[in-house]
Amino acid sequence: MYYLIRIAYDGSKFYGFQRLNKKISVQKVIEEALTIINKKKVVVKGAGRTDRGVHALDQCVSFKLDVSLTKEGLKKALNSLVEPYIYVKEVIEVDESFHARFNVVKKQYLYKINLGEYNPLLSDYVYQSKYKLDIEKMKEVAKLYIGVHDFTNFVSGERDNYDCIIYDINFDKKDDLLEIRFIGKSFYRYMVRNLVGMMIEVGRGKDNISKVKEMLENKKINPGYTAPASGLYLEKIEY
Amino acid sequence: MYYLIRIAYDGSKFYGFQRLNKKISVQKVIEEALTIINKKKVVVKGAGRTDRGVHALDQCVSFKLDVSLTKEGLKKALNSLVEPYIYVKEVIEVDESFHARFNVVKKQYLYKINLGEYNPLLSDYVYQSKYKLDIEKMKEVAKLYIGVHDFTNFVSGERDNYDCIIYDINFDKKDDLLEIRFIGKSFYRYMVRNLVGMMIEVGRGKDNISKVKEMLENKKINPGYTAPASGLYLEKIEY
Repeated sequence: MYYLIRIAYDGSKFYGFQRLNKKISVQKVIEEALTIINKKKVVVKGAGRTDRGVHALDQCVSFKLDVSLTKEGLKKALNSLVEPYIYVKEVIEVDESFHARFNVVKKQYLYKINLGEYNPLLSDYVYQSKYKLDIEKMKEVAKLYIGVHDFTNFVSGERDNYDCIIYDINFDKKDDLLEIRFIGKSFYRYMVRNLVGMMIEVGRGKDNISKVKEMLENKKINPGYTAPASGLYLEKIEY
Repeated sequence: MYYLIRIAYDGSKFYGFQRLNKKISVQKVIEEALTIINKKKVVVKGAGRTDRGVHALDQCVSFKLDVSLTKEGLKKALNSLVEPYIYVKEVIEVDESFHARFNVVKKQYLYKINLGEYNPLLSDYVYQSKYKLDIEKMKEVAKLYIGVHDFTNFVSGERDNYDCIIYDINFDKKDDLLEIRFIGKSFYRYMVRNLVGMMIEVGRGKDNISKVKEMLENKKINPGYTAPASGLYLEKIEY
């Protein structure tokens, strides 16, 4: 049987999603739990990697099991093995052809910025801004990102192609908490954090809009600021 | 110079407030920071202890320094040494006669219960109820607690006197989050967690109100349920 599970996790408790030697990763915890249930080694595929410290409210993971379980039964068995910092929200049966990464239609990331006084209970869950941020200017930067662009200057690591499409970027402010949502097809490594980084640089007045324009047009601009992992949430995946 | 500081901390990162051998405690981190600043050993007094896993939004700590610093200077120096899971919100100069514990006039504790689906990102910050809770019944239990009572059956450890005054208990529900606030003069060890514990037992239908009445009147009743530390916050202290 082939399954897709929708999971949430507290990224501050793991060295990222991907299996990495002996360090505790989300993939490792889930594979070990599934291997116990399956009584035979299970390897999973995630919709995407999240780096160390990055949270997920809706990460998707697919795998094959040799044993047959009801969806409710699998959910319960898995949750008892992966708690407390990972939670399986839903189990879905899929076809053999389904691939958690290649079948993604839309991905949504959320970035949280605390504009108010420092809160030690949110240290791992938001980015604490030391500066006053001009949100209107940040929205102007966001407008530049929307559409298809070559994001070379916002991506970490070597690739053949840096083109990406961003469908929309939304801002939401509740009291001192600024939430920025990025909706796209896929995002490369550090890309959302670098996109937010330049928003912050412009919002605090350290850089201006023209620098962002250049970064989107010229491949030889040095990258700006990488916003910390603590503020980033993989929020939604559509198939 | 004598100082009082108002601090917040993420209790999930410490083995409680009180210094305890080599384990990391809030008191230890603050005393070590103050000893660096003072260039001479500093011992602090807290308004009260919080157990392992219990959070504070406003704990108060008093101490004496031999060096003289401005309030802003001390706040900045301390915060750079105690971050990221402790935060000094305010520094106040006090008289030599001031005592962080004995001078307390009112204390407020907050207990957070998640009534909705499990959230792995809130694992250390709320109590996750597995049961449907009847909030009206919990309010009835709360009414019984208000006033002066002998709380023997709600306190852990031996004492000479178990009398306590609770001024008020307030309920606040936002979506799936239930917040219960306890306002009193002082609370003994595990007391708030045991008070909440019996509210939960009654709210889920496992015990009824008459059991709580008996527990407040008869010293020989076995204690009920101790609600987990994760939901508890020391929220306010008045002098």
